Amino acid sequence: MTAYAKRRSRLIRDTKRTADAILVTDETNVRWLTGFTGDSSHLLLGRNVELLLTDSRYTAQIAEECPDVHSVSRDARQPMADLVTHAVRQEGIRKIALEADSLSVSHWRAFEQHLDGTEFVPTSGVVEQLRQVKDAGEIAAIREAIHLAERGFECLRSGLRPDQSERQVAHELEHSMRRFGADRAAFDPIVAVGSNAALPHARPGHRQVSESGVLLVDWGAQARNGYRSDLTRVLLTHRTSPKLRKIYDVVLKAQQAALRAIRPGAKCSRVDRAARNIIDKAGFSRYFGHGLGHGIGLDIHEQPRLSPISDTVLESGMVMTVEPGIYLPGWAGVRIEDNVLVTSDGCEVLTSVPRNFEQAQVHYLMRRT
Amino acid sequence: MTAYAKRRSRLIRDTKRTADAILVTDETNVRWLTGFTGDSSHLLLGRNVELLLTDSRYTAQIAEECPDVHSVSRDARQPMADLVTHAVRQEGIRKIALEADSLSVSHWRAFEQHLDGTEFVPTSGVVEQLRQVKDAGEIAAIREAIHLAERGFECLRSGLRPDQSERQVAHELEHSMRRFGADRAAFDPIVAVGSNAALPHARPGHRQVSESGVLLVDWGAQARNGYRSDLTRVLLTHRTSPKLRKIYDVVLKAQQAALRAIRPGAKCSRVDRAARNIIDKAGFSRYFGHGLGHGIGLDIHEQPRLSPISDTVLESGMVMTVEPGIYLPGWAGVRIEDNVLVTSDGCEVLTSVPRNFEQAQVHYLMRRT
Repeated sequence: MTAYAKRRSRLIRDTKRTADAILVTDETNVRWLTGFTGDSSHLLLGRNVELLLTDSRYTAQIAEECPDVHSVSRDARQPMADLVTHAVRQEGIRKIALEADSLSVSHWRAFEQHLDGTEFVPTSGVVEQLRQVKDAGEIAAIREAIHLAERGFECLRSGLRPDQSERQVAHELEHSMRRFGADRAAFDPIVAVGSNAALPHARPGHRQVSESGVLLVDWGAQARNGYRSDLTRVLLTHRTSPKLRKIYDVVLKAQQAALRAIRPGAKCSRVDRAARNIIDKAGFSRYFGHGLGHGIGLDIHEQPRLSPISDTVLESGMVMTVEPGIYLPGWAGVRIEDNVLVTSDGCEVLTSVPRNFEQAQVHYLMRRT
Repeated sequence: MTAYAKRRSRLIRDTKRTADAILVTDETNVRWLTGFTGDSSHLLLGRNVELLLTDSRYTAQIAEECPDVHSVSRDARQPMADLVTHAVRQEGIRKIALEADSLSVSHWRAFEQHLDGTEFVPTSGVVEQLRQVKDAGEIAAIREAIHLAERGFECLRSGLRPDQSERQVAHELEHSMRRFGADRAAFDPIVAVGSNAALPHARPGHRQVSESGVLLVDWGAQARNGYRSDLTRVLLTHRTSPKLRKIYDVVLKAQQAALRAIRPGAKCSRVDRAARNIIDKAGFSRYFGHGLGHGIGLDIHEQPRLSPISDTVLESGMVMTVEPGIYLPGWAGVRIEDNVLVTSDGCEVLTSVPRNFEQAQVHYLMRRT
């Protein structure tokens, strides 16, 4: 039984409680359940049915990517609702679960019109919850995505020039990761100079590396299998102030406290609290305005969330970011972000780019010649 | 009155026929109506209301990108439905149009629960129809996106090596376009060697440029303002066969016939027919399986569609691709794709990469040294 088949069995078992079958419409969920990487395709799963509803463009790709899944194709003019209707009638499905977070109102209404008499059960986050715990293949894929990101970052660091703009750094970083084999960046990298680093979601612009002593880089790679990594480092391009040193140390200490709190059975809000306590005690509580971390996988933001309001309990096999930060508006920001696997008795930090203050120093590379 | 304000006025006027107001939820539509480039934000437009419903991350960005639009923000924990409910009640809106193609079932249900007594009108393609006709600023933006794509392609052509893989070519092409100022590729470029060029949606793989005499490249740039271009050229890396020459000429002739048919008042299906007739008469009717073209703009696929079943009538200001192709499975494919503006009395081809057979020849660059 393939990993995909196992996932489908598990979802079918879980669905039985609420419906005869589930129609998976979210593309990432379809991929996670089948290995199929195309779009515009739905997966119908029930007690006696595992059927990919797709179109004729994908015949060859399906044979290659998911030979163990039955599929039916439509041509370009036939609406998806026709395929769904036919399959639901043929399988005698009376009550069908739908993914309400991704399904559009148009599709929902088309299904309702075609399937008069069928009961629809809107669901939310069912597959996403299963995706929280990664299997061995997924963990290996995330390790690969981390490796690609780290190779790219080392090229960024070694090749950094004072006259590079944030945009140039971001574009070269993605190109480097691809040269090592990445499909693309896992998300648009954040490359932020000085006060831009105080904006947790800054977009790279025309500021040059030399305009400030702080360069924050938040980046990741998407490996060929679709899995992603997500890291943040700060590079210090001038000789640094005692204030920056202090903030850096607080953030690093907060991250270490969080890592000590991560183990199976720990509640996500407690892990967030472990880091936040350190930042609060150092007097920066107002300057850490986001959650501590999030799951990573086929999506860059997945469950679980390490946040003050998450009741999720950690389980072995979950993989997430741990990314405390302190942001002083108008001045700069420091965030340190690593990727962590929950193990049977604690956690393993999967990322290995140095994170100590000494190795963040790159001012010796920045001398203008 | 800004171009954005004009667009909003027009939409408000059109909405009056069906509802008191429209809630725009599609991100690209929100951008087209305001200039705002963030996500997770909705735009409420009605007789007396123009309100962007957003969150607190975007305060500074909104001030910069759309200072003429009123906005209200939620914090991270407040659901969007709260903002919508408040605004709808405050404005006394009884009947509200919603974008059914992009709105999720979850959001729709949340709005229904909160807004008991309000009537919802699902709509489809309302803003998209307005977006078909480009104004002067948009046409300039598309010209810029074409220029960036063409600069990138010339670098690809001049730097092509026999040992490059399809993936390497695609990645270097995106990097080149960015070096000239593009935000990114307009879509994942198709770089297809030999029989891969017979698949209209091939994904770049490990095939090397030298493995066949045909290299098909379908690419575009996204300019900083979000507008996109979309071109296809075939490069001939070996001395070519008479069969390839014939197919190339038929495709080029089909494109020229389509260009002659493009003018205000022409029906899209007739333009498609003009090109398809040439391909049919040459005996390749089975080998041109897709529509002739599609609108481009903020999205890579927009209205109008040049297809056998489109009743849309062309108007001055529409911009679209014209991309006939002939695909012989297992052998190769030829597609020639340019971007065209409908003018007051015909059309203007906006793209300028040479498209004649002679200039597709690059075999003289491919000699192994």
